[in-house]
Amino acid sequence: MLDENRLFPAEPEARCVASRLYASVAELPLISPHGHTDPQWFADDQPFPNPAALFIQPDHYIFRMLYSQGISMESLGIPQLDGKEQADPREVWRIFAKNYYLFRGTPTRLWLDYAFEKLFGLTERLQAGNADSFYDAIDKALQSPEFRPRALFERFRLEVLATTDAAVSSLRFHKKIRESGWKGRVLPTFRPDAVVDVEFTGFRENLAKLGEIANEDVGSYRGYLSALRKRRAFFKDNGAKATDHGHLTARTADLPWAEASALYERIFTGKMWAGDVELFQAQMLTEMAGMSVEDGLTMQLHPGAIRNHNAQVYAKFGRDMGADIPAPTEYVRGLQPLLSKYGNEPNFTFILFTLDESTYSRELAPLAGHYPCLRLGPPWWFQDSPEGMMRFREQATETAGFYNTVGFNDDTRAFLSIPARHDVARRIDCAFLGRLVADHRLDEDEAFELARDLTVGLVRKAYKL
Amino acid sequence: MLDENRLFPAEPEARCVASRLYASVAELPLISPHGHTDPQWFADDQPFPNPAALFIQPDHYIFRMLYSQGISMESLGIPQLDGKEQADPREVWRIFAKNYYLFRGTPTRLWLDYAFEKLFGLTERLQAGNADSFYDAIDKALQSPEFRPRALFERFRLEVLATTDAAVSSLRFHKKIRESGWKGRVLPTFRPDAVVDVEFTGFRENLAKLGEIANEDVGSYRGYLSALRKRRAFFKDNGAKATDHGHLTARTADLPWAEASALYERIFTGKMWAGDVELFQAQMLTEMAGMSVEDGLTMQLHPGAIRNHNAQVYAKFGRDMGADIPAPTEYVRGLQPLLSKYGNEPNFTFILFTLDESTYSRELAPLAGHYPCLRLGPPWWFQDSPEGMMRFREQATETAGFYNTVGFNDDTRAFLSIPARHDVARRIDCAFLGRLVADHRLDEDEAFELARDLTVGLVRKAYKL
Amino acid sequence: MLDENRLFPAEPEARCVASRLYASVAELPLISPHGHTDPQWFADDQPFPNPAALFIQPDHYIFRMLYSQGISMESLGIPQLDGKEQADPREVWRIFAKNYYLFRGTPTRLWLDYAFEKLFGLTERLQAGNADSFYDAIDKALQSPEFRPRALFERFRLEVLATTDAAVSSLRFHKKIRESGWKGRVLPTFRPDAVVDVEFTGFRENLAKLGEIANEDVGSYRGYLSALRKRRAFFKDNGAKATDHGHLTARTADLPWAEASALYERIFTGKMWAGDVELFQAQMLTEMAGMSVEDGLTMQLHPGAIRNHNAQVYAKFGRDMGADIPAPTEYVRGLQPLLSKYGNEPNFTFILFTLDESTYSRELAPLAGHYPCLRLGPPWWFQDSPEGMMRFREQATETAGFYNTVGFNDDTRAFLSIPARHDVARRIDCAFLGRLVADHRLDEDEAFELARDLTVGLVRKAYKL
Repeated sequence: MLDENRLFPAEPEARCVASRLYASVAELPLISPHGHTDPQWFADDQPFPNPAALFIQPDHYIFRMLYSQGISMESLGIPQLDGKEQADPREVWRIFAKNYYLFRGTPTRLWLDYAFEKLFGLTERLQAGNADSFYDAIDKALQSPEFRPRALFERFRLEVLATTDAAVSSLRFHKKIRESGWKGRVLPTFRPDAVVDVEFTGFRENLAKLGEIANEDVGSYRGYLSALRKRRAFFKDNGAKATDHGHLTARTADLPWAEASALYERIFTGKMWAGDVELFQAQMLTEMAGMSVEDGLTMQLHPGAIRNHNAQVYAKFGRDMGADIPAPTEYVRGLQPLLSKYGNEPNFTFILFTLDESTYSRELAPLAGHYPCLRLGPPWWFQDSPEGMMRFREQATETAGFYNTVGFNDDTRAFLSIPARHDVARRIDCAFLGRLVADHRLDEDEAFELARDLTVGLVRKAYKL
Repeated sequence: MLDENRLFPAEPEARCVASRLYASVAELPLISPHGHTDPQWFADDQPFPNPAALFIQPDHYIFRMLYSQGISMESLGIPQLDGKEQADPREVWRIFAKNYYLFRGTPTRLWLDYAFEKLFGLTERLQAGNADSFYDAIDKALQSPEFRPRALFERFRLEVLATTDAAVSSLRFHKKIRESGWKGRVLPTFRPDAVVDVEFTGFRENLAKLGEIANEDVGSYRGYLSALRKRRAFFKDNGAKATDHGHLTARTADLPWAEASALYERIFTGKMWAGDVELFQAQMLTEMAGMSVEDGLTMQLHPGAIRNHNAQVYAKFGRDMGADIPAPTEYVRGLQPLLSKYGNEPNFTFILFTLDESTYSRELAPLAGHYPCLRLGPPWWFQDSPEGMMRFREQATETAGFYNTVGFNDDTRAFLSIPARHDVARRIDCAFLGRLVADHRLDEDEAFELARDLTVGLVRKAYKL
Repeated sequence: MLDENRLFPAEPEARCVASRLYASVAELPLISPHGHTDPQWFADDQPFPNPAALFIQPDHYIFRMLYSQGISMESLGIPQLDGKEQADPREVWRIFAKNYYLFRGTPTRLWLDYAFEKLFGLTERLQAGNADSFYDAIDKALQSPEFRPRALFERFRLEVLATTDAAVSSLRFHKKIRESGWKGRVLPTFRPDAVVDVEFTGFRENLAKLGEIANEDVGSYRGYLSALRKRRAFFKDNGAKATDHGHLTARTADLPWAEASALYERIFTGKMWAGDVELFQAQMLTEMAGMSVEDGLTMQLHPGAIRNHNAQVYAKFGRDMGADIPAPTEYVRGLQPLLSKYGNEPNFTFILFTLDESTYSRELAPLAGHYPCLRLGPPWWFQDSPEGMMRFREQATETAGFYNTVGFNDDTRAFLSIPARHDVARRIDCAFLGRLVADHRLDEDEAFELARDLTVGLVRKAYKL
């Protein structure tokens, strides 16, 4: 079912080069420096539940597409805030199988076909007629020791897997993993959004928890920053290599201390002025950059998603329900305060992501092609796809080069899709390099070196692994 | 002159698949759910006038290009508001022929070559030297019964042809067609711009006419909405399947009744506040969506064109003179009020078009890949072209899939170009599918199913035909 | 090292057509109507200094990439404002050679490889190991008569080379060239930014100098405009064919005389209101367009670069240090005042450039496909690259056609890169045309005609050469 030349250029000369390049990197270990798997999986090493709970219900790529075609989220067993439900997993799987054709042309389809074939040996195309046999085969496999999280981690040849963790997290599952003696490297990532974004659910409780856990008075800006510094140190002690920041915009600010302090007081007391919420986030990006200069954690910025766009879905199902929609994102003026302060620091690595592809050639590549701190993250979310990756290489490389990029992030909570996602990225990078060689823009020996750098070299460097 | 493999990928494997796919859809009927042909043509079935009046003077794609190269609109016989002119049609044709090389690389060239060869058997390339022989051949053909509008409609295998009609239209030509016993399906489309956009020429007269024709007091918001509801019902009774809305932006609003009512009063009395014109249009999009939920008419939104950009041309020649220029268009925040209210309604179909391709991957595909009501219209106007269509598929499919699109719209007043336009769309869709098959992203049997869906299946569903 | 088929499509049919097309234009003379070479080179005809001073230190494409990867500008011998330094040129060259791999996939790499092979016979790939032998070979060549500026000019088959010159320039080097009897055509271009942009370094001194050199009282708007008119006439007398305007935005204004005059008074006296700086630039674009209607100089607008983004680099090294970053650029509303006034003038040629590729299909092609005065400049700066050029053709041609474009601009101060840049442009144009022929969208005889027009025909017409 999976063709060995999939995703390579159809033109024979470029395909041939791409294929040789791919052969040289296909078996390299997977490095996953940014994602959203659950560390508890690896701490407890319990079997995954049924196929629906594994493949469908946690994956908004899947249920958003089904929902867009009129299939209710209730019928798919998506958990509702009021705890109601529950759909029978086999019924959910049948709906999915019957509508599998909706994913034609999408990366989700590529990832799923890969997982079905490579992990479960299922080489038919999923459809209504074989829904039950797929369900049974997967369900059975999930009960076997080979499908426990740690066994899969090893089978996937994961060299590093980073999770994303709230600033106030105890990181107890990460500790448990280390203390278990198991050798898999599962590293935390410091994500402070919930104590930086006033509109985040539970912001004030999070703030209180931050003060408590760090033993600092978060009633003052100084104490708040100290608490964050301590938490970063704690994360670093627990193996963290990076921080991650999910903001609505890429705006940054560099306020004088007195202004920043007064702003924080308004935030803390809830007596905010118009614009304070966004200004505080802008200020905090610059503060976080400063802390990265101090502690060496790589900084990642993921701006541009308008969260919870569908009010009805949000009211019933809550966050992360496939209703996050990108917005036009401006980087050049937005980042100037931060870059003017820390952009030339030699040991600072600042990785930018985007959902607005019009910024690749206009803003991101020119910025990354100048500032020493900047690197471009791989195509993210809706752009983590064959066409999206190819556009990124085509639009960013000529100005930023390859060496201002950082390899691939799978960015996923769908653990079983990780090998498939890396495989797509490797194939597309080799396809792009194959085309450059076929066009005589690059020598073949350079393409081999680049294929390896794009697969393991750049990511190790950017995240100091 | 027309190569059988035109517009297919040059690479042999993809070309071969594309060619087989195309063969399976080439002879399917044409379905034209959105366009601007004149229903009177089919009501009266009179011969079309001379070649210039048929091909050049009504087609702003053609005369805008000639004008951009310094050829005066007067010399092309474009009607002036003061009634002056008149250019000799044969002279107009000669100018056109002499400058036909200007259309190299444009879709207009593809459409014209197709019409010349397939309809008139003219297989040379038009140029100064054969201008007269082309003119004579076309002119002669137009006098024959085979070139009457109804005969051409049948020859084109048009299953449905929708026109676009003012909200206050009597639809008398549509009635005449039905009453004539002729079986061609020519359906009206409800276009209320002229009674929603205060800046539309004759807005107040249109409003008065709306009240009169619907027998409602349009002095109140309630009466105005009732009048629109009645007109929609009238259109539906006359076969309409859809409404169409041409707004400057995609902004929507959902005002409380009292506010909306007061806003309408200011609009009606002309005592408007700053921003009222745009706010009223925003409010009316949501009202229209609500009426679509009620009456089932599919809703189409075409935003983003700044009309009549060239003040001198507008003063002399009026509207639709090739001087409409796209503007950056924002959908995500703009549509939220409407989508929050009606976006999850099961029987609501809302088709979005754009002139701003940067929104395909950033906004439109993510929106359509989530909201049940949303579908993406085909590439529109300046993007109704081989490269434009290919970019749409490449940039929208991975997030929205194929099944959140609606097939092709020819959107034309150039009746003779309709088969050519559909042919281009079918070829490009097959070229895209052929590439996916050649890249092993899609199985060939799926591509055949998709080719058919993109040609006739999706359009029938989206417009309830 | 340089393959004869480089940059052509890999697919054999399209490659074959592209190759034949290229053969027909490869030897045509180079026409460079817009660039930044130094007229003194051709006036004095002195040898170029060492390889580092020739290739690296004046070329921000090169040192920005090295800087982005942590190589200090001091170590590259980039001149500092305080006059400190100096790096040894051979050491600079070694750093460059060692890091040459950073340019993989960039146009800089293509240009350098071309210059190394074609000019210096160096057919190895530059790297640490051959740094010294490259240095010695280039250094030796530069001392020979064949590498003097005039000899290279002739060897490059330059038909015309335009420089860019301040409005207050005496053009003495242009005079010296003419008076020397040498036949090379080196033409000045009128660039008034330094007397139009209040924030330009030395604006007031420039204004005073403008008044003095033109013998006008620049204390009044009338005198200021007269001075500019006289300078334009002086440039025209010295061979200028065009003006060039580098603005932050494409905004234009058409103020009544009294308002414009009062605005100028505020500008002149430094008593500006908020927004005056930008409004004055907007007004001046329209004034300059009016003067172009009068004197026939072709007008060029290069908007959209935020200059000197990196405050630390600007403080230490000054302008043009690779820290200019593009911003989203709006053309449609911005240009309307100018176009409404002069857009239909028959003898006015107004060439638009952009760094925001999202405007190609959305704004620039629709504008150029309508207004008689408008032409689209080639892909500029970061987009002057194989992928960038291909996107331009793909996104602009279908709406604007080929004949609303103006051929290639090398836009460079890197004299030795000029043949390489034109070669890339010719190859990509032929690759695009080859693809259109292979796809049967264009006949081959038309492609030959177009290849020649894109190479020499359109540029001669647009700049009245």
